[in-house]
Amino acid sequence: MLKVGLLGAGRIAGVHATAISSHPGSTLVAVSDINTAAAEKIAAQYGAQAHDTSAILEDSAIDAVLIATSTDTHSDLIERATAAGKAVLCEKPVDLSLARARACQKAVSSIGRPVMIGFNRRFDPNFSALKKAVDAGEIGKPELLSITSFDPAPPPVSYIKVSGGLFRDMMIHDFDMANFIMGAPPVTVTAVGSSIVDTEIGAAGDVDTAVVTLTYADGRIAVIKNSRRAVYGYDQRVELLGSEGLLQAQNILENTVVKSTTKGVTGAKPTYFFLERYMPAYAAEWAAFVEAVKGGTPLPVTLEDGVAALAMAEAATLSIKTGSPVSLASLLD
Amino acid sequence: MLKVGLLGAGRIAGVHATAISSHPGSTLVAVSDINTAAAEKIAAQYGAQAHDTSAILEDSAIDAVLIATSTDTHSDLIERATAAGKAVLCEKPVDLSLARARACQKAVSSIGRPVMIGFNRRFDPNFSALKKAVDAGEIGKPELLSITSFDPAPPPVSYIKVSGGLFRDMMIHDFDMANFIMGAPPVTVTAVGSSIVDTEIGAAGDVDTAVVTLTYADGRIAVIKNSRRAVYGYDQRVELLGSEGLLQAQNILENTVVKSTTKGVTGAKPTYFFLERYMPAYAAEWAAFVEAVKGGTPLPVTLEDGVAALAMAEAATLSIKTGSPVSLASLLD
Amino acid sequence: MLKVGLLGAGRIAGVHATAISSHPGSTLVAVSDINTAAAEKIAAQYGAQAHDTSAILEDSAIDAVLIATSTDTHSDLIERATAAGKAVLCEKPVDLSLARARACQKAVSSIGRPVMIGFNRRFDPNFSALKKAVDAGEIGKPELLSITSFDPAPPPVSYIKVSGGLFRDMMIHDFDMANFIMGAPPVTVTAVGSSIVDTEIGAAGDVDTAVVTLTYADGRIAVIKNSRRAVYGYDQRVELLGSEGLLQAQNILENTVVKSTTKGVTGAKPTYFFLERYMPAYAAEWAAFVEAVKGGTPLPVTLEDGVAALAMAEAATLSIKTGSPVSLASLLD
Amino acid sequence: MLKVGLLGAGRIAGVHATAISSHPGSTLVAVSDINTAAAEKIAAQYGAQAHDTSAILEDSAIDAVLIATSTDTHSDLIERATAAGKAVLCEKPVDLSLARARACQKAVSSIGRPVMIGFNRRFDPNFSALKKAVDAGEIGKPELLSITSFDPAPPPVSYIKVSGGLFRDMMIHDFDMANFIMGAPPVTVTAVGSSIVDTEIGAAGDVDTAVVTLTYADGRIAVIKNSRRAVYGYDQRVELLGSEGLLQAQNILENTVVKSTTKGVTGAKPTYFFLERYMPAYAAEWAAFVEAVKGGTPLPVTLEDGVAALAMAEAATLSIKTGSPVSLASLLD
Repeated sequence: MLKVGLLGAGRIAGVHATAISSHPGSTLVAVSDINTAAAEKIAAQYGAQAHDTSAILEDSAIDAVLIATSTDTHSDLIERATAAGKAVLCEKPVDLSLARARACQKAVSSIGRPVMIGFNRRFDPNFSALKKAVDAGEIGKPELLSITSFDPAPPPVSYIKVSGGLFRDMMIHDFDMANFIMGAPPVTVTAVGSSIVDTEIGAAGDVDTAVVTLTYADGRIAVIKNSRRAVYGYDQRVELLGSEGLLQAQNILENTVVKSTTKGVTGAKPTYFFLERYMPAYAAEWAAFVEAVKGGTPLPVTLEDGVAALAMAEAATLSIKTGSPVSLASLLD
Repeated sequence: MLKVGLLGAGRIAGVHATAISSHPGSTLVAVSDINTAAAEKIAAQYGAQAHDTSAILEDSAIDAVLIATSTDTHSDLIERATAAGKAVLCEKPVDLSLARARACQKAVSSIGRPVMIGFNRRFDPNFSALKKAVDAGEIGKPELLSITSFDPAPPPVSYIKVSGGLFRDMMIHDFDMANFIMGAPPVTVTAVGSSIVDTEIGAAGDVDTAVVTLTYADGRIAVIKNSRRAVYGYDQRVELLGSEGLLQAQNILENTVVKSTTKGVTGAKPTYFFLERYMPAYAAEWAAFVEAVKGGTPLPVTLEDGVAALAMAEAATLSIKTGSPVSLASLLD
Repeated sequence: MLKVGLLGAGRIAGVHATAISSHPGSTLVAVSDINTAAAEKIAAQYGAQAHDTSAILEDSAIDAVLIATSTDTHSDLIERATAAGKAVLCEKPVDLSLARARACQKAVSSIGRPVMIGFNRRFDPNFSALKKAVDAGEIGKPELLSITSFDPAPPPVSYIKVSGGLFRDMMIHDFDMANFIMGAPPVTVTAVGSSIVDTEIGAAGDVDTAVVTLTYADGRIAVIKNSRRAVYGYDQRVELLGSEGLLQAQNILENTVVKSTTKGVTGAKPTYFFLERYMPAYAAEWAAFVEAVKGGTPLPVTLEDGVAALAMAEAATLSIKTGSPVSLASLLD
Repeated sequence: MLKVGLLGAGRIAGVHATAISSHPGSTLVAVSDINTAAAEKIAAQYGAQAHDTSAILEDSAIDAVLIATSTDTHSDLIERATAAGKAVLCEKPVDLSLARARACQKAVSSIGRPVMIGFNRRFDPNFSALKKAVDAGEIGKPELLSITSFDPAPPPVSYIKVSGGLFRDMMIHDFDMANFIMGAPPVTVTAVGSSIVDTEIGAAGDVDTAVVTLTYADGRIAVIKNSRRAVYGYDQRVELLGSEGLLQAQNILENTVVKSTTKGVTGAKPTYFFLERYMPAYAAEWAAFVEAVKGGTPLPVTLEDGVAALAMAEAATLSIKTGSPVSLASLLD
């Protein structure tokens, strides 16, 4: 039984607490948060103890920690937890600073404890079925990847200001999805974007609508589309053209009812809330972490993956400023 | 080049005139109708002559006639045309009277000229693709057939009164579709029905909503659903469960545009008008007739098929009166 | 907190145990089964005690029992549990004997404790969304209902022999669905059926493929199609034609991936296992039970509903024997 | 009755001949081609005369010409035909040279005869329904447009070499589609591309897979994806995100049959051949031309539209060479 400490007690931490408790091979033993009451509430619900973070890291009975704190603490906590011998599953992104993330990566690599980054979408049953079909050669050689990723509504501008921007905060999931599907990093990153959804977002120095094209060494191309607003729901689709066919992973709908009237044929919308869409993915992500840690097998998403996606976000941010393609290698030498 | 006379100049005759003229192996040479002006109009449009029916039947230069007159004239015209040596394509139904249709069948069989009945739906690209898949064994052994056939709106009650009733006028297409798919006639016919769409239809002695179940000697079952009203369009679907899978032929939509808003995900309706839906079927039907007549090969739909469907309509009419299953054989001995 | 005893520890009892434990307003305190080890296993997993049934019924600290034992014990346990003051949720069917079920209904009605029958499909998010749309008048006045309900594979013939037959064992869910959607019982029940899937099922006196038509006092019609085998998965669909449109509740698919190749455009199959399809329904069913019991409000599915569906199953069984429609009233006077 | 001369007698000319002849307001009177036999064949089929081009242009009885000759003759023939007083419908592109096309535009503007460019896709019932929905404000303010346009198989490399390249030969349709939907030209054009489908195409100096992003003055963004190969058929989709929803125009399928087996749920492929997909568009295009010419009303697609799309193709060609965004204005001053 893997004994787990949960660092953070916010909304996403609650999701992880459920996954940890429901898994037959893991148990939640401790929770910490700067908001003590929040930590206590989760601890009570799942029969765990509320502690401070240091106590959790120092508790030798705890095998693993799940880091679901604010982004600015991720790198430090990864380093402290691995140094304390814990296996780590850390929410994305590793850091808003590529330099800090790379330093963390370097520090951790010498310690040798497993660190997995929480790119939950890799574990979505639809995207993982698509990936499996690609790997099985079902559409031949991949050529052109398209990722559509629209949020239902933009976050408050106050959040936008501290988010690191659309590329680090939102599209980073899609950068990782591209890396997951393509199995290699791109060579160049070219971004266009605007703040057509909300000019306040533009005033805050960010974009709310963006298209990024990625080119690969072997001629493959990927394109990622993001918008902060799709009023009909959370729109999450992946489409891959290959030499022998096309694969598409489509949205999950609220239900399967279809109504035909004089006004048309109307079905349900995509699920609106990301937790509705990705709840099965969080459970599968945790199961994969437990399996790798217990089995001593390679993690399905690594700290390197976290750094790679962050580098792409930095490249896109730079591309939109300069109006030119950015070489990914130029950011990583 | 097959020289063709068209008997009748109403709406459906116009559809056939187009099919005859567009086919590279046939040409429309004469048209007749009790409404002379209508005959002259079609004749002018396609470079044919307007004549009276007798003149067309006596013209030895005419190879084939297409009968698109009122139902009560079908049997007589089939007999006269075949006696005059013409190949015949006659609109459904053969007759409203099963006895008259069987007499016609007997008369024609001794003459030996080809007579095809216009069950156009067999030539619909969707239903014929389904039939081809069945025959190729793609779902194994057929077990349970469902036919949904809803008209967008009921005809005037004045028409209902002379139509022969829902089973002879509307469901006869579906009886033929069942025979087409199943490749054998049923053993029993059981009908339920009501006039829930329009009580005037009930007052006229007919039903507007009906479900008929058919049983087959080998244990297969079919069910046909009819309604005179489906406000969203012309709803024409076939579904067949077999030992190794399910086949479904679905509706043709007005276009492929889908709109996602806060109100749901809305696509186009099924085509509303039967000619929109079945125009390709009419052209394919004519092509099949020309090919069989020219090649001397068996017709894809025979007068026997017309009689078989009519017998099923009579059985259903009787079943709804008696409230009991009707043996098809009892009507045909 | 509702304290719950679980009678039965088989597969479906495990599903209920999860639902009871996951609900914030209920807790599983005791489990009984003639297989003591099975009861102990479930009890251990959820922190409950294994007891014998009598002990559970006599324990005044237990508020409610969930009956998930074999069908032949349902009526007795319902009577004993209500007599002991428990609220009851009992798996369907109430009994295989309509007479016994009606006696149970009579006994319970004098006791006055709440008894809900586990027609879980009413709580399926798709069917309940369809029902809500009907009740909101979104397709006007209902006219013609179709229910398709195919199992992926037939059970062993040994099970068939003790099942009460397809109508009492399988189609009973669809009878209840018809009652749920139509809001009234039918007037007549007409069944056709055969054992085309497996002749052994026929030899055991049952059918494996059946179509039942129901007529209603106001002219509405319903048709239910059942097959014990749909190799592509668990096929569960409802379709309702109304005066202003059509509602369809379609299948849940294993995932949303679609592959386009030279062989066609292929998507995932419907979920294969009934628990996959209906797991959310079991949770919603339990939540509805807890809400009604705690709030003292009417139960969403009553013992009367259980008897009504059973009467329809008996009528269908009789219809298939006699080859004639059966009046439902004739069975209930 | 509009009397029409057809310049060219190749495959696409045959399509136009059918549209001209089938339209009740136009008649095909003459056909020319450097391949005299081809011209005579089409002329015979539709009751027209084969002439040489000069004779057609000088025939004052001819009201309009349809130019379906090789691209290098388009500009000359547009100028000669308008100078001779004809109304003109010319196949796309106007020219491979932007300079020549602009000179043609200038010459024609002083003559004042109507010239329409054959961007047939604007008349596709699906894309025109999408455009109508946009204009009706059904998804609010447009923000992000995606066009997917994949050919089923690449043309011979010999054709590629004289085609003007993917942007002028293939994506020009999509540039016009973007202009049609967005109602304004873009500000910048950024292209990435590779020859991953066939390295011979790369050796010929062209790409076979490309993604182009367009930015607009008001912050809108468009992205166009092209591939010369989609083995499953002709993949033609348009998707537009707006402030109040999403519009998608999807593919036309070969038929509506869906098969469910243990291998999945398989439907028909998109139509493979562009004429299958766009045949209704060619008829609608011709009808729109006839209506505008007869009514003296503005043409739905102008020579200016042809030049605009060509300029975007030139910009994309330049962008892919330089690796940088190209300002459209820089090509048109």
